[in-house]
Amino acid sequence: MLGLDPDGTPDIPITGLATLEKAGPSQISFYTNRRFHQALARTGAGAVILRAEDAGGCAVPVLISANPYATYAHLSQLFAPKPAGSIGVHPSAVVDSSAQLAPDAVIGPHAVIGAGTVIGARARIAANTVIGRNCVIGADTQLMPNVTLYDGVHLGSRVLVHAAAVIGGDGFGFATEDNEHHKIAQLGGVVIGDDVEIGAGTTIDRGALDDTVIEQGVKIDNQVQIAHNVRVGAHTIICGCSAIAGSSVIGKNCIIAGAVGVINHVSICDKVTVTAMSLVNQSITEPGIYSSGTGLSDTASWRKNIVRFRQLDEFSRRLHMLESAGPGKSSKSSKSSKPGKPE
Amino acid sequence: MLGLDPDGTPDIPITGLATLEKAGPSQISFYTNRRFHQALARTGAGAVILRAEDAGGCAVPVLISANPYATYAHLSQLFAPKPAGSIGVHPSAVVDSSAQLAPDAVIGPHAVIGAGTVIGARARIAANTVIGRNCVIGADTQLMPNVTLYDGVHLGSRVLVHAAAVIGGDGFGFATEDNEHHKIAQLGGVVIGDDVEIGAGTTIDRGALDDTVIEQGVKIDNQVQIAHNVRVGAHTIICGCSAIAGSSVIGKNCIIAGAVGVINHVSICDKVTVTAMSLVNQSITEPGIYSSGTGLSDTASWRKNIVRFRQLDEFSRRLHMLESAGPGKSSKSSKSSKPGKPE
Amino acid sequence: MLGLDPDGTPDIPITGLATLEKAGPSQISFYTNRRFHQALARTGAGAVILRAEDAGGCAVPVLISANPYATYAHLSQLFAPKPAGSIGVHPSAVVDSSAQLAPDAVIGPHAVIGAGTVIGARARIAANTVIGRNCVIGADTQLMPNVTLYDGVHLGSRVLVHAAAVIGGDGFGFATEDNEHHKIAQLGGVVIGDDVEIGAGTTIDRGALDDTVIEQGVKIDNQVQIAHNVRVGAHTIICGCSAIAGSSVIGKNCIIAGAVGVINHVSICDKVTVTAMSLVNQSITEPGIYSSGTGLSDTASWRKNIVRFRQLDEFSRRLHMLESAGPGKSSKSSKSSKPGKPE
Repeated sequence: MLGLDPDGTPDIPITGLATLEKAGPSQISFYTNRRFHQALARTGAGAVILRAEDAGGCAVPVLISANPYATYAHLSQLFAPKPAGSIGVHPSAVVDSSAQLAPDAVIGPHAVIGAGTVIGARARIAANTVIGRNCVIGADTQLMPNVTLYDGVHLGSRVLVHAAAVIGGDGFGFATEDNEHHKIAQLGGVVIGDDVEIGAGTTIDRGALDDTVIEQGVKIDNQVQIAHNVRVGAHTIICGCSAIAGSSVIGKNCIIAGAVGVINHVSICDKVTVTAMSLVNQSITEPGIYSSGTGLSDTASWRKNIVRFRQLDEFSRRLHMLESAGPGKSSKSSKSSKPGKPE
Repeated sequence: MLGLDPDGTPDIPITGLATLEKAGPSQISFYTNRRFHQALARTGAGAVILRAEDAGGCAVPVLISANPYATYAHLSQLFAPKPAGSIGVHPSAVVDSSAQLAPDAVIGPHAVIGAGTVIGARARIAANTVIGRNCVIGADTQLMPNVTLYDGVHLGSRVLVHAAAVIGGDGFGFATEDNEHHKIAQLGGVVIGDDVEIGAGTTIDRGALDDTVIEQGVKIDNQVQIAHNVRVGAHTIICGCSAIAGSSVIGKNCIIAGAVGVINHVSICDKVTVTAMSLVNQSITEPGIYSSGTGLSDTASWRKNIVRFRQLDEFSRRLHMLESAGPGKSSKSSKSSKPGKPE
Repeated sequence: MLGLDPDGTPDIPITGLATLEKAGPSQISFYTNRRFHQALARTGAGAVILRAEDAGGCAVPVLISANPYATYAHLSQLFAPKPAGSIGVHPSAVVDSSAQLAPDAVIGPHAVIGAGTVIGARARIAANTVIGRNCVIGADTQLMPNVTLYDGVHLGSRVLVHAAAVIGGDGFGFATEDNEHHKIAQLGGVVIGDDVEIGAGTTIDRGALDDTVIEQGVKIDNQVQIAHNVRVGAHTIICGCSAIAGSSVIGKNCIIAGAVGVINHVSICDKVTVTAMSLVNQSITEPGIYSSGTGLSDTASWRKNIVRFRQLDEFSRRLHMLESAGPGKSSKSSKSSKPGKPE
């Protein structure tokens, strides 16, 4: 079923998955990272999924896979709990008479569905979730409890939205006149592609005029903020607590690590990785890995070093002065040999 | 209606607003930023709102405004979708018998209103929102779905609270004794002024003894955290994912960009801007723009530079030593020429 | 009742608590921080809780305590509002017939309780909160409104979960094959110990295979993100907006300040403090205080200094060159005198 090489696989009833350390003889485990080579040697698992070249380090039966982690992902789905069996609309749900629900959609207790909204086949709307007017929910899409969709949000098929996420809230736009801020009505929508996952507590704002767009296959973790008119390219991953400011564009197949900030109106090209808690304060035009921050120190040293950080421009001048004056004159280099790659 | 100079404005039926790039002949657009001057020259809009001095760059009819962005804001409200027509209390809402509701207030499905709470004229409480006891909701204030107000929260008039926001939760206060943490009951409240907007998923804690206060006209974006006893001055803007720690005071007309942190017990004076992802770790006493962080680099260079960051204090000593010893002696400067402005 | 030294305490009826500045003669205040010594001298409080050595600076009656802040914490509980008197299950709640509820548990309006879930004695489930299947809620535990618990979440006794928190959502795990991301079913659970507090909007993901574990007495503020398979040691404090990435382990009695990031697969030993907005990008093996970041500057200076930050590695080479060539040769030091303590 998993397309694995059956060689060496005994006929064991398997009841579940476990880590190398905890797996017993009726459980399957997997091995992908050399950090765990000792755990592999000692594991009590019934079988281990691993690459052919790692089989030698394993004393129990092996399942050979070219991508053990992907095999584990597919296998994990077999053991995922099934949703409760009920279908149809819970009697406590409030569904507008103009909404169109697929007959096999599931609408949970106290869910609210607005006028003109269309719910696709086998979609599951969990308890206490609120969907506004004129939304479109694709087939096999699942909204967990306490989610809010404002009016006019379009979700593709097989989308998974976790609890307390908010999609389609107003973009944060104001025009300032005499120190007061006048709200700009946010007239765009939100379009979410197929196979997108959206984490718990994540917020995705509607566009000001055009739509905010999350392309197919994007995976967004918990508590991410996506501002109005952002576009996130297909198959990009955005980890927890990152914030993407208005009108910025993120390419395809990027990895935005946790707690990253992206300022407004910048573009990030395809295949960029940004490491944790970095600030993208300019566009990135070349694929690669990018970072900001200082790294961690003990606080006593750090306090001294941040004082010097504020003197860096002065240091540069003093260094230049010494080089001009002293015997090391010929060795000076007037431009940085490692400029930041961002434009 | 908008108070614009009608010169040159033809009599076109207008159906909506759009960006310069996408607008068609029945849509109005606006121009505020020279970055878009090519789009202005090429736009197919029915008319463009712009400053008199920019009219020359536009081939279609213009609407002259001294503040085109504000004119656009006012105009956008004309095109904002109207809320559903129903008024009164949805039969599924649970309203305590001692709550006082204006007759034209709207209470949505499954909303819950606690004892002693007062809901003002034309206020709209959306589906699945929970309001505690003894709250006051001003006239024309709107709470979107899945909002939570704890007991004793006061909202002014024309306040807009987005989905999943939480106002009046306990401030985070504990007294530690023998390594265990004893909760300090949070006995203060939260007072929100008129015309405040509060973003989706934002949390504003109640005060420990006194109130947490958000003054009139403040605009707060999504996923902002405001801790107990914070005061935010009138017409300040706080962008997404910023966090203001306990008892800090932010002045009036400030701009706190996205993902900024403000530590506890500091004061920020009026008219301060803090750029994205900066940490305000001390009070700010002069208006101006403030920042922290390192800017973005490619990760390979960054790894080398952060090692050197931790050696900065040592660098300073070595530089001083060279200056004392060498021919550049007279050029040294013992104090920083650009100290950070914060006190 | 509070175990205080009664000497000098007059027989005054006390109606509440207040700060030194605002307290009147029927209110008690407290003094713990020398910053407020002037407020202490001027206070109009009926009595002040303070240390014996501080009594001299107070003109009103004193209550001597070895830990005035803890005494204040205990006293504050006397003035905390009591929950509404109702017990039992609100008629609008939807409780699965297989759930087991203690007879004195309180289930609020529109709450939803899944199959097989067990709710302990005196537990309070507030309005619009959703609890999945097979959860266990300990005695005296309280869930505020709009909370979501996924299936299989275990909460200890006396746990307090604030509004809109989400516990047990899927960990963020995908296996990538041909640029597409395959979901790894998250088969572990979440176990929360006794006396834990969890802030509003906080998200705690379920484990991939093993459980995510929050040990007893941990206090977590608002909008914190705890990823899958994290373990947080007993009596640790995590302040608002911090994010702990997958599989990281935080020790006991740590203090993680606000907006801190901890990358995945690191360990932090017991009794570590991390200051606000720092990134823990490596394990910490010694108790102490740790920081990262640059401190705040005016933006004009900061722009110059971040250019130099990116040249730091080059600066280091130039400094070394000068030292090798010049008269200061003997003073050079080839290794940093203050390395970051993290391993």
